[in-house]
Amino acid sequence: MPNLQAHLRVPGPTPLPDAVRAAGAWQMVNHRGPEFAALMGRVLPALQRAFRTSNDLVLVGASGTGGLEAAVVNHLSPGDPVLAVTIGAFGDRFAKIARQYGADVTTLPVDWGRAAEPGAVAEAIVRMRAEGRSPVAVLMTHNETSTGVTNPIAVLAAAVRSAAPDALVVVDAISGLGAVPFDTDGWGLDVVVTGSQKSWMVPPGLTMLAVSPRAWAAQERATMPRFYFDLRAHRDAATKGSTPWTPPVSVCFQLDVALGLMEAEGYDSIFARHAACGAATRAGLAALGFRLLADPEHASNTVTAAYVPEGLDWKSFNAELRRRGLALAGGQGRLTGIVFRVGHLGYVTLDDILAALDILEEALADAGRPVDRGSSLAAAARAGSEAARGRVPDATDPVVPSPLDAGRTRA
Amino acid sequence: MPNLQAHLRVPGPTPLPDAVRAAGAWQMVNHRGPEFAALMGRVLPALQRAFRTSNDLVLVGASGTGGLEAAVVNHLSPGDPVLAVTIGAFGDRFAKIARQYGADVTTLPVDWGRAAEPGAVAEAIVRMRAEGRSPVAVLMTHNETSTGVTNPIAVLAAAVRSAAPDALVVVDAISGLGAVPFDTDGWGLDVVVTGSQKSWMVPPGLTMLAVSPRAWAAQERATMPRFYFDLRAHRDAATKGSTPWTPPVSVCFQLDVALGLMEAEGYDSIFARHAACGAATRAGLAALGFRLLADPEHASNTVTAAYVPEGLDWKSFNAELRRRGLALAGGQGRLTGIVFRVGHLGYVTLDDILAALDILEEALADAGRPVDRGSSLAAAARAGSEAARGRVPDATDPVVPSPLDAGRTRA
Repeated sequence: MPNLQAHLRVPGPTPLPDAVRAAGAWQMVNHRGPEFAALMGRVLPALQRAFRTSNDLVLVGASGTGGLEAAVVNHLSPGDPVLAVTIGAFGDRFAKIARQYGADVTTLPVDWGRAAEPGAVAEAIVRMRAEGRSPVAVLMTHNETSTGVTNPIAVLAAAVRSAAPDALVVVDAISGLGAVPFDTDGWGLDVVVTGSQKSWMVPPGLTMLAVSPRAWAAQERATMPRFYFDLRAHRDAATKGSTPWTPPVSVCFQLDVALGLMEAEGYDSIFARHAACGAATRAGLAALGFRLLADPEHASNTVTAAYVPEGLDWKSFNAELRRRGLALAGGQGRLTGIVFRVGHLGYVTLDDILAALDILEEALADAGRPVDRGSSLAAAARAGSEAARGRVPDATDPVVPSPLDAGRTRA
Repeated sequence: MPNLQAHLRVPGPTPLPDAVRAAGAWQMVNHRGPEFAALMGRVLPALQRAFRTSNDLVLVGASGTGGLEAAVVNHLSPGDPVLAVTIGAFGDRFAKIARQYGADVTTLPVDWGRAAEPGAVAEAIVRMRAEGRSPVAVLMTHNETSTGVTNPIAVLAAAVRSAAPDALVVVDAISGLGAVPFDTDGWGLDVVVTGSQKSWMVPPGLTMLAVSPRAWAAQERATMPRFYFDLRAHRDAATKGSTPWTPPVSVCFQLDVALGLMEAEGYDSIFARHAACGAATRAGLAALGFRLLADPEHASNTVTAAYVPEGLDWKSFNAELRRRGLALAGGQGRLTGIVFRVGHLGYVTLDDILAALDILEEALADAGRPVDRGSSLAAAARAGSEAARGRVPDATDPVVPSPLDAGRTRA
């Protein structure tokens, strides 16, 4: 049955609420004028509340990757030892950026699908210190979009602090912050990066960073070249209610509106909604026989990666899903063709997950796959409402062995 | 009399046509999906037609300043001799970016308000060559937004070609391209940068660059560090109908719509409209007694800078203009407080200029200034229709001495 509606279930850009869409159509204003200054006066404190920080917030006109670059080039000098803890494609990208600008990067790679462990992080730092290369910064990913794994940043940051108290803790929080609990100041994070097109229910175009006093002090000394991404220029302009270069004004309008919606809903409710959607997605996919990539203990509540089952041609199946109105994401980097991903962040409710599973289930059945029609919906609804009621999402539930995936080994 | 309408007459962001505004409210799509690939398939060729080039076009999610940085870091190595021809604040910025990344920059500064001269450019190159520092690139500004001067890029580029045939010609065309005649291939330009919020009638958030085969060859050798702004990554992704990092999708929607509007109007008609608006603005301001900054021979048809007359407090007068619905821009850099600027680019007609002059005229009269009510409107209408009919804009008309500005000397 064709579906009249489009279901955008990729991990960003995420769907926009109507009020956010409407703000995208507002007429331009002067970004050096009073309307924009008033907007900055609302948006920056709202972001501080969302980040749970009293650190300075800056808005930069770029994607999240631009934010990662800003996080690197402002605080490091060529030759600086850096530890990059990478659990997937975006962790690798963060390390690559630092290397590109001449940092002396040691990577701590973790099997894709797993979270980093604080002991391993501490050990890596101890090894670096023993070599006389105490890290100036540790780069970490909060929520790895390529694998659907959420790192336990609180304990990882604590491990960094104990092993290298002077190292800056620099966190890519692009695809998690705003959707799942996060505590910039409580966890002692120095630089935190996010992007407008993720949990924030806003089109892409803005990256938002929180910068600690320690990180500003490091910025004074850091010699990596920077101009567009110079965060001090952004901070100085922000004090005057503007940005150093012309900002993406319409995306700023939309962020202002979206932050209002988020505060009206309340972050606890937002987190419960994402927990429900995450649990429902995992349970629904598992009921359909898909094997999930992520270690259940660290499964992300914003994106889920599932293996493409043996014998299913992803390209043509995905095209069929698109015809039915469901847009999913493929695998990234070394997972291209191996997994597909379902985004469940931002403007998403349990009903959206049920709609996506319904399309997926029917398409599988029509493709001649063994499907117990309705089973994924029932499983998802159960898991979703349990998670929303505060039961720990099905973290400890064993993953159901997949009838679609027999004989396939984990990548 | 309060004005019910808002008149955004700054040199970017520029007002949006209704169809462009509507596209800003469209729901998100996957930037790796077929809808976005189709958009890229329309936008890139339309930009090639607007740039008059067969060179590769790339879209980067950033302001024009980000585009200038991309134009520097992709084609140069630290230590490379570079000539930066600067006629204002944006020319200075271009030079500063190159210096920031370690280029050996020689500036050829031109008095603010004047255009660069081909002879001076050739001489500067000859001097650099005599010192064994033949420039790897020459940076130039097409339309200097801070002064309202349009450089004669055709003859300047020819001068570079004859004095240093191997030097890349790198042009900041941010605030002119799309509004006034421009010929990337005819003028032999290697890198041309523009920004969505100028002539393109689109919100800020995108910078668009045309890159010649010579510039791509230079990119292979150039060692300045780059990641987000790596144009090769953008070109490679463009061949697959996407971008390497998440693009500002809504701004891309809007650019697609705006380019359709521009092609429907036709570039000759767009250029005539800007010539009319430029001539009308200059004639209207002159009739009000404002002295203009720009050399009349090179006055910009997209932005006009006028001196703040003696005895007029710009800050409070500007606030009064804003109360009446007119948003103008102040001076930049060393012209802060000295000049104000009127933007007349993008979605602008002669009527908009008349409306702005009407507000300005009435506010001046209410401030007790000697104003012959209606005089600027008559002068603007006359100059505008003459310019639209193809008469060379009032380039050779003597500037009327200003009754408001007696005794003031040129900055």
